[in-house]
Amino acid sequence: MKTLNIAIAGFGGVGRTTAALLLSRRARYQRLHDTQVRLVAVCGSRAGLADPAGLEPGRLERLEAGLSGPGFITGSGADVLIEAGPSDFRTGGPGLGYLEAALAAGMDTIVISKGALVHSGPRLRDIAGRSGARIRLSGAAAAALPTLDLVRHSLAGNEVVSLEGILNATTNYLLDAMMSRGLGFEAALDEARAGGFAEADPRNDTEGWDTACKLLLIANFGLDGALEMRDIAVQGIQDVTPGMIADWTARGLSPRLVGSLSRSEGGLRGEVGIRTYPSDDPFAGVRGKAKAIRIVTEAMGETVAIGHAAEPLATAAAALKDLEHLLAAGRAAPSDAGKDPA
Amino acid sequence: MKTLNIAIAGFGGVGRTTAALLLSRRARYQRLHDTQVRLVAVCGSRAGLADPAGLEPGRLERLEAGLSGPGFITGSGADVLIEAGPSDFRTGGPGLGYLEAALAAGMDTIVISKGALVHSGPRLRDIAGRSGARIRLSGAAAAALPTLDLVRHSLAGNEVVSLEGILNATTNYLLDAMMSRGLGFEAALDEARAGGFAEADPRNDTEGWDTACKLLLIANFGLDGALEMRDIAVQGIQDVTPGMIADWTARGLSPRLVGSLSRSEGGLRGEVGIRTYPSDDPFAGVRGKAKAIRIVTEAMGETVAIGHAAEPLATAAAALKDLEHLLAAGRAAPSDAGKDPA
Repeated sequence: MKTLNIAIAGFGGVGRTTAALLLSRRARYQRLHDTQVRLVAVCGSRAGLADPAGLEPGRLERLEAGLSGPGFITGSGADVLIEAGPSDFRTGGPGLGYLEAALAAGMDTIVISKGALVHSGPRLRDIAGRSGARIRLSGAAAAALPTLDLVRHSLAGNEVVSLEGILNATTNYLLDAMMSRGLGFEAALDEARAGGFAEADPRNDTEGWDTACKLLLIANFGLDGALEMRDIAVQGIQDVTPGMIADWTARGLSPRLVGSLSRSEGGLRGEVGIRTYPSDDPFAGVRGKAKAIRIVTEAMGETVAIGHAAEPLATAAAALKDLEHLLAAGRAAPSDAGKDPA
Repeated sequence: MKTLNIAIAGFGGVGRTTAALLLSRRARYQRLHDTQVRLVAVCGSRAGLADPAGLEPGRLERLEAGLSGPGFITGSGADVLIEAGPSDFRTGGPGLGYLEAALAAGMDTIVISKGALVHSGPRLRDIAGRSGARIRLSGAAAAALPTLDLVRHSLAGNEVVSLEGILNATTNYLLDAMMSRGLGFEAALDEARAGGFAEADPRNDTEGWDTACKLLLIANFGLDGALEMRDIAVQGIQDVTPGMIADWTARGLSPRLVGSLSRSEGGLRGEVGIRTYPSDDPFAGVRGKAKAIRIVTEAMGETVAIGHAAEPLATAAAALKDLEHLLAAGRAAPSDAGKDPA
C-alpha cells in the first residue's frame, strides 16, 4: 500500500468541504488506487493544524493560531497541496505564495482559487516544469462543469475551432430572473443576495471578471494559449436595461453572459459579453445557476456540456476528481512534466 | 523518437476514414508524443495490405486478396489494433476473432464496432488482463458524444446515481420528423432512408438494439457493471402511433428513445424505451441526429452532454481520441492491466 499525504491551504467553506469529502473517500482510495490518503495539514490565513499521522474529521473544528503560510505547508510532509483560498486575479491572492512554494518543492497542486493561475500562470507552470510537479485546476475552471476535461481529454486530438461558455452561475441566475420575472438588474441582484446566490460585492461576477478568469484558464491550460487578462475584452451585465429585456423577450431570444474563444492570426482571441440565443439553442435552456460550455472542432462537430450542481460540494468534488487523476497516473517523473497531457 | 505500429481491421467507410485521419495526424503524434505512428496493416473481410515500413494514403485504394483475418493482423507487427468491422451483438461478429487474437498477443485495441464487446466483454477483458493489453471503446460507445469519458474521467471519484442517454441518432431523427412534421413512422423512415440516415434494414436502430448495445458498454466499461443484453428491457419506436404523436404534441412533450441505468439491489438496471420531456428539459432540445447523455452523481449534481457531428468522421475521431489517450499514458505494464483507470 502506498501513502499520499495531502495539505489544504484555504479553509473556508470550500476548503472544509473538500477536507470532509476527502476523508470520507479514504476507503475508496485504498480499494481503487492501493493508496492510503492522509490529510496531514490544513490552514486558513492565520491558523491551522498538522499531523503527519493524518487528521481525523473531529479535529478540524479547532485550528491552532500561527500554523499557516507557505512554509507551514511545505514543512508538513504533504505530497499534494489543494489550494482553496480567496481568489484575487489582480494580485494573485494568498494562493500565489502557497503555489510558488509547493511547486518549487515538487508538490503536485490541485488549484481551486483562480487568482494565482490567472495572475502568474506561465511562471507557475515554469516552476512546475523544473520540479516535475503537476498542476490541476478543475475546481478553478468552472468546477463541476467539465471544461478542461472536454478540451484535453474528451476531444483529444482535435483542434478547437471555437469555444463559448456560460461560466458564471450568479450572472446566469440574474439574467434568468430579469427575463422570466421582468426584474430590473438591481431588483434581481437584491433577490439573489437574499437567496445567498450573490456576494455582498457582486461586481466580480456581474461585471464579467469571474467569467474572464475561467475563460483565461481554459485558454491557457486547455488550449495552450498565452492570454492575459488585458487581452480579453470584458463586458458584464450591469448595464442591461428594461428596454433590452423587452426587446429580447419580443424577439424570443435568451441573453446569456458568455466567455468565448476564437482563433485569430495572433493566436486565441478571448471575449466576455452578452450573447443572445434563440429558443432551440441549448444555451437558451441553461437556466438559473446552471453553467454550460460549447466546443466546436472540425472532426467531432459541436459538443455541449451543461452542469448543474450544489456548491460548495461540487467544487470540492471537482478538486477531488483532479486527485483521482493524479492517483490514476501515478507519480510523474520530472522529465514528463513539460508535456503532461492531463 | 518512439514508434507505434497500427493495424486496422474492418475497412469500410469508418475504417477508411480512420486510416486517412490517422495518416493526416502523423506530424501531430511526432510533435506531441515524440512517436512515429505507422499504419502497418489494414484489412477488410477478404483483402488487405501490409507494410512494416508503413502504408501511405495512396496505397490504400487497392487491397490484395487473401490478406485478412486475425493471424494476418497479429503477424503484422502492429502494437495497436483498431477494430472497425461490421457489428453483430448476437454472434460477436468478425470483430470477436480479431479482438481475441490481438488482446491475447498483448496488442492494445481500439474498438469501434460494438458487437464483440457486447457479446463477450468480460471474457475479452480477462484476456486483456492476462496479457497487459488495454481496451478502449470511445468509438463504440456513442462516438463523438463523450459517454465513458464523462463517467470515468470528468466525474471520477463520484458514484453515478442514474444515467440516461439519447444514444441513437437514427431514432432521434425519426422521432423528430414524426413530431415536427406530423409524419407517421413509415413515412419518417422512408424520408430517413432517402437521406441516407437509416439502414436498409433499420430494425437494429428502430427497435432499440443499438441503444441497448451502447448502454451495455457504458454500464460494463464505465460503471463496472456486468449487464448482458438479456438483462435489459428493450423497447423501440416502431410502435409509435399517430395518436401518441398527437397526445405528446398536445401536452407539449418531446419523445426520445432513451437508454437508462439506475441502481437497484442486484446492481445496475438497464432499460431502453421512449421517455417524454417537457420543453425546458435539455433532452427536448436534442434534435435531428444529435445525441445526448445525462448523468447524476451526488456530489456533482447533473451533467448533460450533447453531441452533434458528421459521420463517419466523428467516429474516426473518437477512435483516434482513444489513441491519444494510449499515447499519453505510455505503454502500460502488464501488472497495471487489471485496474486500468482509463
